[in-house]
Amino acid sequence: MNKFVIAVYVDNKFGVLTRVTSMFTRRGFNIDALTVGETESPEYSRITISLSGDGYAREQLINQLRKLVNVKKVDVLAEDCIKRELMLIKVGYNSTTRADILSAVDVYRAKVIDYTKDEMCVEVTGDPTKMDAFIELMKPYGIIEMCRTGIVALERGSATLLGKE
Amino acid sequence: MNKFVIAVYVDNKFGVLTRVTSMFTRRGFNIDALTVGETESPEYSRITISLSGDGYAREQLINQLRKLVNVKKVDVLAEDCIKRELMLIKVGYNSTTRADILSAVDVYRAKVIDYTKDEMCVEVTGDPTKMDAFIELMKPYGIIEMCRTGIVALERGSATLLGKE
Repeated sequence: MNKFVIAVYVDNKFGVLTRVTSMFTRRGFNIDALTVGETESPEYSRITISLSGDGYAREQLINQLRKLVNVKKVDVLAEDCIKRELMLIKVGYNSTTRADILSAVDVYRAKVIDYTKDEMCVEVTGDPTKMDAFIELMKPYGIIEMCRTGIVALERGSATLLGKE
Repeated sequence: MNKFVIAVYVDNKFGVLTRVTSMFTRRGFNIDALTVGETESPEYSRITISLSGDGYAREQLINQLRKLVNVKKVDVLAEDCIKRELMLIKVGYNSTTRADILSAVDVYRAKVIDYTKDEMCVEVTGDPTKMDAFIELMKPYGIIEMCRTGIVALERGSATLLGKE
C-alpha cells in the first residue's frame, strides 16, 4: 500500500473536521497522521492527512470528500512536495551518554529545549524519514516521551493548492 | 474564553479519532487546531487539541472524553508546558523586499526551504505567538500560501503524561 498525503481546505466551521474524519472511517482508511491549522485566509482551515491506500479506493475517497458540505478543495500532494514535521522527544541521559546524545542533536540540527539533571527534551524538524531515523538513534538511551505533529506539506515553486484547478 | 491544550492518548485503532472529534462537536466546542501522531509506544496515538472554553463546560468535556472507548488518558496541559508548532509559509519577494524578508527569517531563526525567482518558502518553528508575529510581519510582502501544524506540547521536567496519575 502506498503512503500519500492529502490536503483538504474546509470552511472554518463547527463540525467540519468530524465530517471529514468520519468519511475516512466509513471507507475503512486508517489515518496515520493528521494536522488541522489556520491558513492564509481566515475563512478556511487546512487539514493535512497522511495515510496508506491503493489506487481505486483512493480515487473514490477523494471524490467523496469533494462532495462533502463545507469542503472547499481536496488535493493529493505531488511526491516531490515539501513535507515537514515537528517532533518533541524527551530522552534520559547520564554523564556517559550525554556527549553522544548532544552530537546526534547537532548532526540532525535539532535543538535541546528543556534540560533537567537526567533528561533532555529535544525539538526535531524535517522530513518524516528524518524523524524516524532520529527516534531509532535515541532508542538505546531511553525515550521517556515523544509527540509528533504529523506532516504539513506545500507544493514546490509557484503552485498554490487553493489556486490550482 | 480561555485557550487551553488537551493531550489525549488513544489506542491506535480505527475510528478512534472520529469518536474523539465527534465528542467536541456534540458539546459545542470548536477546535482551533489538532494534531495526531505516533508516540513512544506503537499501540498508542496522541491527539493534541487546542481550543477555547470556560471552566465548567471544560471539566464536563474532559470527563466525557475519559469515558470514551479506546481513550487511554486525557490531560489538560499546564500553562508553562513546552508548546511548539511548525509553519510553512510561502511569501512573494522582489529585489527591493528580499533583504528585509531574509533579515526577518534570520531574526526568527527560521529557514528558507524553497526559493524560486519570485517566491520563497520559509519554515518557522516555535511558540504559537511567535508564528502569529511572523505572519503579521510577512503580510505586507504578500503571503501566497501557508499551513500550520497546530500545537504539540510536553510537560517540562520529568513529568510524563502517560505515567502521571
